[in-house]
Amino acid sequence: MSQPTYAPQAIRAIDVIRKKRDGVELSRREIEGFVSAYTKGKIPDYQVSAWLMAVVLRGMTRPETAALTDAMLRSGEVLDLSSLPAKKVDKHSTGGVGDKTSLVLAPLAAAAGVTVPMISGRGLGHTGGTLDKLEAIPGFNVNLPVAEFRRVLESCGCAMIGQTAEIAPADRKLYALRDVTGTVESPYLICASIMSKKLAEGIDALVLDVKTGSGAFMKSEDDAVFLAELMVETGERMGKQVVALITDMDQPLGKMIGNALEVVEVVEVLRGRGPEDLRELCLELSGWMLHLGGVAKTVSEGKQQSAKLISSGKALEKFRQMVELQGGDPQVIVDLKKLPQAQHAMQVTSAKSGYVASMQCEQIGTACVILGGGRERKEDSVDPAVGIVLHKKVGDRVETGELLATIYYNAEAKAQRARQLIEESCEIGVAPPAKRPLVHRIIGKSGDKN
Amino acid sequence: MSQPTYAPQAIRAIDVIRKKRDGVELSRREIEGFVSAYTKGKIPDYQVSAWLMAVVLRGMTRPETAALTDAMLRSGEVLDLSSLPAKKVDKHSTGGVGDKTSLVLAPLAAAAGVTVPMISGRGLGHTGGTLDKLEAIPGFNVNLPVAEFRRVLESCGCAMIGQTAEIAPADRKLYALRDVTGTVESPYLICASIMSKKLAEGIDALVLDVKTGSGAFMKSEDDAVFLAELMVETGERMGKQVVALITDMDQPLGKMIGNALEVVEVVEVLRGRGPEDLRELCLELSGWMLHLGGVAKTVSEGKQQSAKLISSGKALEKFRQMVELQGGDPQVIVDLKKLPQAQHAMQVTSAKSGYVASMQCEQIGTACVILGGGRERKEDSVDPAVGIVLHKKVGDRVETGELLATIYYNAEAKAQRARQLIEESCEIGVAPPAKRPLVHRIIGKSGDKN
Repeated sequence: MSQPTYAPQAIRAIDVIRKKRDGVELSRREIEGFVSAYTKGKIPDYQVSAWLMAVVLRGMTRPETAALTDAMLRSGEVLDLSSLPAKKVDKHSTGGVGDKTSLVLAPLAAAAGVTVPMISGRGLGHTGGTLDKLEAIPGFNVNLPVAEFRRVLESCGCAMIGQTAEIAPADRKLYALRDVTGTVESPYLICASIMSKKLAEGIDALVLDVKTGSGAFMKSEDDAVFLAELMVETGERMGKQVVALITDMDQPLGKMIGNALEVVEVVEVLRGRGPEDLRELCLELSGWMLHLGGVAKTVSEGKQQSAKLISSGKALEKFRQMVELQGGDPQVIVDLKKLPQAQHAMQVTSAKSGYVASMQCEQIGTACVILGGGRERKEDSVDPAVGIVLHKKVGDRVETGELLATIYYNAEAKAQRARQLIEESCEIGVAPPAKRPLVHRIIGKSGDKN
Repeated sequence: MSQPTYAPQAIRAIDVIRKKRDGVELSRREIEGFVSAYTKGKIPDYQVSAWLMAVVLRGMTRPETAALTDAMLRSGEVLDLSSLPAKKVDKHSTGGVGDKTSLVLAPLAAAAGVTVPMISGRGLGHTGGTLDKLEAIPGFNVNLPVAEFRRVLESCGCAMIGQTAEIAPADRKLYALRDVTGTVESPYLICASIMSKKLAEGIDALVLDVKTGSGAFMKSEDDAVFLAELMVETGERMGKQVVALITDMDQPLGKMIGNALEVVEVVEVLRGRGPEDLRELCLELSGWMLHLGGVAKTVSEGKQQSAKLISSGKALEKFRQMVELQGGDPQVIVDLKKLPQAQHAMQVTSAKSGYVASMQCEQIGTACVILGGGRERKEDSVDPAVGIVLHKKVGDRVETGELLATIYYNAEAKAQRARQLIEESCEIGVAPPAKRPLVHRIIGKSGDKN
């Protein structure tokens, strides 16, 4: 009787699906075979989407999550930066509104002698994207080939590009499928997606900035902590030093939202100015990068070192170098008016007196998307000039008729909609609310060396 | 700003998937829109398979199950048999080993004046299929077009065919996808699949035979009861009279397994002979069909009437008529040797004395599949002549060396494998086991009129 015969290494997609459906732990071999066959086009989308849904609803064990991350990582090229003598450290944020820390951190840590090979993404939903912000700088090229990326890294210690076709192709294919099958929202899949791309950068250590609050993807702190622990453990299982900071995203970070506007605020921080929350978070994350990068004994020492590199102008100079090496106009740093400017401005004023009690942070991000500063669909282009400047933040006193925010826009109708959203998102109360900490928790084995 | 616009009736597949993933009840409109768009090829397989997996793991409410059944039913043609004056009643079994009751019941109920428009399936896994059994009769045509099906029904009150392209096309498409995505095993999806096809027959009432035990798909009685209740309620929500009998499938039904052999046993029962369990279950199910079909006041009266139609030869004559009308050779009924005969026979004897304590019923079904009596893959053809005759059943006394079963085969190697399976499947104990009832439970509002 004819029996189907299989190669000893082959896995059957249907068996992998059924096991996950029934909550049985998959072996490394099964996960690796499944991901590898899918990347090669040997398993159809409809089997993988059923499996993804089973993962969303059944979850994954830590070994499964690590195996998935590893399989996705090894689906493409892993950068070998071992020829660069310094420690390679990157930072990744789970995304927020006004979160422009990457643009500060890459040159800051590089100025301290850490190598920062940063591969970033574009804006997603209500959140901004590092690549979109960089592209607000006239001429800045985020699409460097790997050889050029390496050359910039060698020259100035940091480089910032977008994902290349060679890095984690399994993630690109899986993400496109997750996006249309309701399987994005799984900490296990989010972890594998983020960590596979980050570990493909050839880094030694990684600082994760996991956002929580009304402007984050993880609204509850419990969800943020769960994802952070998963990513830290997955990175550690793969031999990397990883720390995660759970940070506040219950209101926008800093005062400026919108691509060119955020570059302005980045330069402000690198000049030793800028809003307190943004400056403080940059120093905190930089402290960790310097510590894990081996140039500071403790995180506090890393923070102090970072503050000095800002006040001495060395961090700003590093930023200028990187901009120039990546084809951008370094003059924007001296003359910020060279950045794209919106044609019009509209004022948003307070209808009553009191204290800013809360901001619906996601709504403010959405207002910026509506102005054209983000994408509603992947294929949309972004207007770098538009955005929002907040004049008040949570806890600030405000009088009736006083300015809450300024909207920079190029289309009147969009500005009207954005204004309505901003007005709705700001709640004015009679007393100042309790202050939320900027860093809620630190997760990772290195967390006690603070 | 451009906003995506949708037709008022359009549903977005991604929203339907996400809702089910999150355990939110879907509306009738959403389920109907989803199934209808999929049937028309407007939703890709990869979205539907993710949804199916979410259904497997999240389940469905009763209204959702009814809406899915209804949507699948209305994806194709619903037979209109209202021109036939008698009540239309069908019986459906969830599948077992040696379950040939359909071939007895269709002519038996028709002889009593009930119309039986039976659309059946082929063997699946270790279980046999009604169509395969009918095709063991030389010339019997199960692929009648609907007009011809109606003509046979008008002539003799019963007709037995396979699923046509017009009936529930959504089920055919969904079933093919479920088969390769690990989403077969869901009572909600099983219920919708069965009920959509049965209700498309234009019936007034349905008797369900839900099997439980080692040879059933639902091994545990709890699972069988759950599925039965789901099907009964779904049918009732759709305005049909439905009753479900939970019946025993812990050993094969009757003594013969294999397509031509089962036709022999059917004729035996219609001649008033045959094994007790098969005869008893046929009378039980027929009693219900006659009762729901309005020709018997009670089920007991229906059973008595059925027994009389057998002893008078009227049921057998009805079977002969149907065979003839569907192109089969009616002479097989007079001379059973005209049915396909296997070339060889092999005896399976007992290695010890005692009582048959249990039979691994699924293994016996698998032994028949191995002989060629069933399909390992959908595209396999079936050998009608091969099969197994059991000489002992559970509870029977057996002596060392005494005949347990005879294997009828056309290929020696297959027979050897089948013998090994049968030997392994029969456990001989020192005392007779407690007798399992044939009918475990009756489910449905009509259950008290027994």
